[in-house]
Amino acid sequence: MSADKTSGRLYGIGVGPGDPELLTIKAVNILKVVPVVAYPAPESGNSSARTIAATYLRDDQREIEIRVPMRSGAVPMAPYDRGAAAIAAELDAGHDVAVLCEGDPLFFGSFMYLHDRLAGRYPVKVVPGVTSLTACAASAGLPLVGRNDDLLIVPATLDDASLEQRLSAASAIAIVKVGRHFGRVRSILDRLGLTSRSVLVAYASRAEETVQKVADVGADTAPYFSMILIPGRQSEDASANRSGRFRP
Amino acid sequence: MSADKTSGRLYGIGVGPGDPELLTIKAVNILKVVPVVAYPAPESGNSSARTIAATYLRDDQREIEIRVPMRSGAVPMAPYDRGAAAIAAELDAGHDVAVLCEGDPLFFGSFMYLHDRLAGRYPVKVVPGVTSLTACAASAGLPLVGRNDDLLIVPATLDDASLEQRLSAASAIAIVKVGRHFGRVRSILDRLGLTSRSVLVAYASRAEETVQKVADVGADTAPYFSMILIPGRQSEDASANRSGRFRP
Repeated sequence: MSADKTSGRLYGIGVGPGDPELLTIKAVNILKVVPVVAYPAPESGNSSARTIAATYLRDDQREIEIRVPMRSGAVPMAPYDRGAAAIAAELDAGHDVAVLCEGDPLFFGSFMYLHDRLAGRYPVKVVPGVTSLTACAASAGLPLVGRNDDLLIVPATLDDASLEQRLSAASAIAIVKVGRHFGRVRSILDRLGLTSRSVLVAYASRAEETVQKVADVGADTAPYFSMILIPGRQSEDASANRSGRFRP
Repeated sequence: MSADKTSGRLYGIGVGPGDPELLTIKAVNILKVVPVVAYPAPESGNSSARTIAATYLRDDQREIEIRVPMRSGAVPMAPYDRGAAAIAAELDAGHDVAVLCEGDPLFFGSFMYLHDRLAGRYPVKVVPGVTSLTACAASAGLPLVGRNDDLLIVPATLDDASLEQRLSAASAIAIVKVGRHFGRVRSILDRLGLTSRSVLVAYASRAEETVQKVADVGADTAPYFSMILIPGRQSEDASANRSGRFRP
């Protein structure tokens, strides 16, 4: 290969929240032509991002698996170092590489660890995807955030005090990464008087999707792929708007 | 038509931020088969949502335009009353109706006004779309929000005091509806020391897309379709995580 060979392009491809029909036309068109795909996967078992995109992959594509142990605490960086090196080898050889990302690549995604390692050295194009945020709102049929609402998206992994402080100041709210934090989040919502407005959505857009009022949930934990939505108070905002608080 | 005729289904279809390739496969499949499409439009001129989806529409589809005057102050409700009535007439006749929504139907969209009027009476299915939020992050190539960040999405239409208070408490931030509020938002970012981390993205995913550091913007206004992004401090969070502030 000559030294002035043009390097390949790195694509970050949002594959959406779970339903394979929620990939974009652009994502599918790119997956049709790239010679290499890469994706994160758990230490053992299937990659969720690959499963979502499987219909659109070809038998003759090379695949780079980035197996990342799922543990509490700091994100292990070695798997991303190795993954980035394997991707860089393909890019150096002039091959485009598409990284499959659940939801959207830049929205609570691990693509940022690859982006950090590769974006300065290679051309990068990110194809945005449907996030679990709007997929959950769609599943619940719940207008999430209107005209003059603000929306706070907050991970349940914050400690109680931080979470309570943030939730008390927000208008519309989405609490992500609920999973095993459901019980303590529920207690905070109870204290703040937010429980009656809160909805728990699990596995949005997938066959096993469920939508429940938080008040009706008996269990102390929720599935890993779950989110609590608390819609904004558009009606309050509308009246505040009339009284001049807002400047539309 | 018999009285027990099954009514049609109302679809809220996210058509994404502007690039027609950012519609989902699901959205395109529905647009291929529905007999009626509806969409918001300004008082005169083209509907932005219809323009985005135009490639996928058929000549034999009926179209319901919901022309809404764009003015400051309260949202006028009469156009939505009339639009909902026209849609209801089609649904009563057993025809499915797809409402085209820029971005996502339930995320800062006017679909909620139709949803409010029709969701109790007819079957509704919302197809989530790519939002301008993640499209702007993709255009800027900017990891927006990581693992333990929270993200605040706030409209520039809030008054100065509310905006400053909210921005000072957030980790990652997206300021939407910037347009003619750019100058005053810039002043607030200056006061909070956030300007150097802020990026202005206009017309994300469209041919006329621009990305600028806020510090480099000379003008006092920005295009209507623009957003300021301030990425989260993942590195700070990572160190806070190690010191036990977070509970992953």
